[in-house]
Amino acid sequence: MNMISIIEKKRDGKTLTDNEIKWVIQSYVADQIPDYQMSSLLMAIFQQGMTFNESAWLTGAMLNSGERIRLNNIPGIKTDKHSTGGVGDKVSLILGPIVAALGVRVPMISGRALGHSGGTLDKLEAIPGFNTRLSIPEMKKEMAEIGISLIGQTDTLVPADKKIYALRDATGTVPSIPLVTASIMSKKIAEGAQRLVLDVKTGRGAFFKTQDMAEELAARLIAIGQKHNLPATALLTTMDQPLGYAVGNWLETREAIDTLQGKGPADLVEVTVALSSLMLLAAERVSSINEGIKLAEKAIQSGQAMEKFLEIVKWQGGDTTVVLNPALYPSAASSMEICSPSAGYVGEADALIIGQTSMQIGAGRLKKEDDINYTAGIVLRKKVGDTVQKGEVLAIAYGNTTGLLNAHKTQLQQAFKIVAKPPEVRPLILKIISGSGEQAWSAA
Amino acid sequence: MNMISIIEKKRDGKTLTDNEIKWVIQSYVADQIPDYQMSSLLMAIFQQGMTFNESAWLTGAMLNSGERIRLNNIPGIKTDKHSTGGVGDKVSLILGPIVAALGVRVPMISGRALGHSGGTLDKLEAIPGFNTRLSIPEMKKEMAEIGISLIGQTDTLVPADKKIYALRDATGTVPSIPLVTASIMSKKIAEGAQRLVLDVKTGRGAFFKTQDMAEELAARLIAIGQKHNLPATALLTTMDQPLGYAVGNWLETREAIDTLQGKGPADLVEVTVALSSLMLLAAERVSSINEGIKLAEKAIQSGQAMEKFLEIVKWQGGDTTVVLNPALYPSAASSMEICSPSAGYVGEADALIIGQTSMQIGAGRLKKEDDINYTAGIVLRKKVGDTVQKGEVLAIAYGNTTGLLNAHKTQLQQAFKIVAKPPEVRPLILKIISGSGEQAWSAA
Repeated sequence: MNMISIIEKKRDGKTLTDNEIKWVIQSYVADQIPDYQMSSLLMAIFQQGMTFNESAWLTGAMLNSGERIRLNNIPGIKTDKHSTGGVGDKVSLILGPIVAALGVRVPMISGRALGHSGGTLDKLEAIPGFNTRLSIPEMKKEMAEIGISLIGQTDTLVPADKKIYALRDATGTVPSIPLVTASIMSKKIAEGAQRLVLDVKTGRGAFFKTQDMAEELAARLIAIGQKHNLPATALLTTMDQPLGYAVGNWLETREAIDTLQGKGPADLVEVTVALSSLMLLAAERVSSINEGIKLAEKAIQSGQAMEKFLEIVKWQGGDTTVVLNPALYPSAASSMEICSPSAGYVGEADALIIGQTSMQIGAGRLKKEDDINYTAGIVLRKKVGDTVQKGEVLAIAYGNTTGLLNAHKTQLQQAFKIVAKPPEVRPLILKIISGSGEQAWSAA
Repeated sequence: MNMISIIEKKRDGKTLTDNEIKWVIQSYVADQIPDYQMSSLLMAIFQQGMTFNESAWLTGAMLNSGERIRLNNIPGIKTDKHSTGGVGDKVSLILGPIVAALGVRVPMISGRALGHSGGTLDKLEAIPGFNTRLSIPEMKKEMAEIGISLIGQTDTLVPADKKIYALRDATGTVPSIPLVTASIMSKKIAEGAQRLVLDVKTGRGAFFKTQDMAEELAARLIAIGQKHNLPATALLTTMDQPLGYAVGNWLETREAIDTLQGKGPADLVEVTVALSSLMLLAAERVSSINEGIKLAEKAIQSGQAMEKFLEIVKWQGGDTTVVLNPALYPSAASSMEICSPSAGYVGEADALIIGQTSMQIGAGRLKKEDDINYTAGIVLRKKVGDTVQKGEVLAIAYGNTTGLLNAHKTQLQQAFKIVAKPPEVRPLILKIISGSGEQAWSAA
C-alpha cells in the first residue's frame, strides 16, 4: 500500500477498497502516515465524497481502532441522542435527565466546543467539580446505578476519530458527509448504544447549511447505522438562530436548569421534548410519539427530570449548590449591550455570527490548549419575529474585559437584521427521517 | 488572516484575494503555516482550480519569495525552454548546445527526477564532476563566457516553490494547472529569461494525460507569461511512448551525445529541432520556423552543437573523456531482456509504466534522500509501429542486481502490447500555441 496512490485515487474520484481504508486508518493511528498526507486525503474525500460502501468501511475501520464498550449487563434498550451541532444547543443536558427519569438507559458520550458550535462536555464542566473524564468501568457503574452517564471520549475509544477530528478541525475538512458520518457512527457504535436518535441541524448555524445536504447526511447516518446494527431516527431541525436565549457554557447550563424546572424558552422545550419522545419510542418505552411527548412534558412538570439531573451532577462529582441556586455562580467581569438601530421586527439573529462571537469572547477555544471562560457568552433578549423599539436591547455579551467585548461589537451587531414587517419563519422541526422513510413532524 | 478560513474559501470554490495568496506564501515559507494545512489547501486548489487572476497572484507571490537574477549585462534576448515532463526526455541536453552554438543566450534552470519523469540535472550529473550547483555569479559568468548555463534551483531562487514542490510530490497534488503554472513561471521569471519556449506534453507518460488538459495548461502558462512580461510559445507534443530509445540518466545522456553527433533517433531529433527552431525564432535569431529548423540541423551536422556541449561540460567541471568516449563509462551490474510474446507490431510502449519501472530499478528516487544509480534504466529495442518476431528483444533493463530487475519484469512486460496490424500513431508534434493563437505544426 502506498499513501500517495491512495490520495491520487480519491483525488480523481475513484472508489477506495476496504483494505485501502483499513490500511490508512491503522497506519495513521500508528503515526506511520504524516499529517500532511492525511489532510490531503481528507480534502480529497471532502471534494469527491465517498460511496455508501466506502463510508461503511471507514466507519468500521475507525470503530476497530479502539475498544468497544459492552453494556450487556445493563438491562433495557440503551439509547442515545446525537446532535450534528448548533448554537445554543443545550438539549442533551435536559433530554438526558428526562428520558433517564423515565427509565431509558443512556450511555451518552459527548464532545467539546468545535468551531462556532458549543460542546456538551464544556457546558457540564461549567458546573464546579463535574467530572466528564470517567473511566469505562465508572461509566458502566453510573449506568447501572442511575441509568445514564454523560462523559467524554476516552483514549481507548475510537482513537482514530480523536486524531482525525483534531486534524479536520485545523484543515477545513469538518463538514464532509462521509467524514461526519464515520466520526459520529463509530463513536456511537463503540459506546454500546442500541438505538440512536439524531438531531440533524440545517441552516446558518449548522455545519450543513442547506436542507438538501442535511437530508443527505441524515440518510447516510441512518444507512450506516443499519449496516452496523444500530437503528437510528433523525429529526431534521432548523438552526438559523440560536436555540433558546443563552449561548456560552454556564449561561446555557443555567438555561437548561431553568428548562428542567419548567421555565424553558418555547423553542428549546419544543425541540427537547420532540427528541425525548423519539428516544422514548426508540427505547420502546412508549408506542407513539404523542405518548412520548406527553410523558416527557410530565417528567419536567413533576420535577422528576430535575431530580435526575441533580443525581447525575452528584454522581459525577459536581457542586449541586449552584445547580439549585444559579444566582450563586460568579458573573462575567464585563458585559456589553447590543441595541436595536431602529424600530421593527427582528428579521434575523444569525446563529453562525452569534456562535463565532461567543467563542471569540471566551466561550470557546481558538487553539486546542486554550482555557474556556465558562461565564463568557451571549444572552439574547429578542428572537426572530419579536417586535423591537429603537435603542431596545437585542442581546448582552459577557466576557472578561470591556476591550475584548468592544472589539466584537460591530460583528455581533451584524448578526441582527431589523425589518419593517413580521418575517416569515420556517418551522423549527422540519421532518422525521428513519430507515423506513420520511414523515412530516406535524403528522407525528 | 486565518489559514482555516482561506482553506474553506478555496474548498468551497470561491476566489482568493491577492493579499490572501501573498499571506499564505509568505507565512508558509516562514514556517508559520504547518504542512498539514498547506497540503489541505493544495488539494482544495487541485480540486477547485484557480481563476486567471489567482494564478497570476500565486505566481507573483512565489516569485517574490526569493531573489531575481538580473541578466541585463548579458547581451541578447535571453531565451529558455521548459518541458512539462515526460519519459526519455533528454531534449534540453541537445537543444541547449544547439541554440547556444547559434548565439542564443540560455539561462536554463532545470529540475530533478519527479515521479515517473526524469530530470535534466540528474542526467547532467551522470557525467562525473559535472556541477549543477553553481552560484548565481558563477552562472552569470558562464552565460557571459559561453552563452549558456545549465544549473539547478538555488536556495535563494523561489524558495516557496522548493518547499511547496516537495509537499506536492508527497501529497498527490502535482498535476494541477494553477500549481504547475505558478511553479514553472515563477522560476522562469526569476531566472531572468526574456522569452520562453514550452514543450507541453500530453499522453500516457505526461502529467496531463488528455490533450484538453495539456492545451489548458499551455494557454494558462502563456497568459501568465504575458502578464509577467515573459512571452512564451508552446509546442504541444505527444508523450505516449518514451522519446528516443533510452530511459535513465547516463543512458539518456549517452543518447543525447549520439544525437549531438548526428546519430540520434528520428523522434528525438524531430522534437529537439522543432523546439530549437522555436527558440531561435523567439530570440529573433531567425525569422521563420523553417529557417530555424535548417539552422538547428546544420548546427548538429557541422559539429558546432557537440563542441558547445563539450564547452559546457568543461566549464561546469565535468569529465569530457566519457563524453568523447561513452564506452569508457561503467555499465550497470545486471541487465534483463524483455522479449516479445508473439509476432506482430508493437502497438504500445507505455511511457508511464516504462518511466515508473526505470525509477524503481534505480534511475530515480523513491524517497528524497535516495541516491540515484546513473547506469540504471531501460533501453528500448523496438518502438511503436515496429515489426517484431516472437521472442525478439523489446527492451533491456539495467540495474544493480538481478533480483531487483526480476522483481519488475512482469510490470515492464505489461508496458508492451503486440498487435496484429500496424497501429495508428498520432503525430509527435500536435500544434503550436502562442499568445496570438494556435497553429498547426505542419503549416509551420
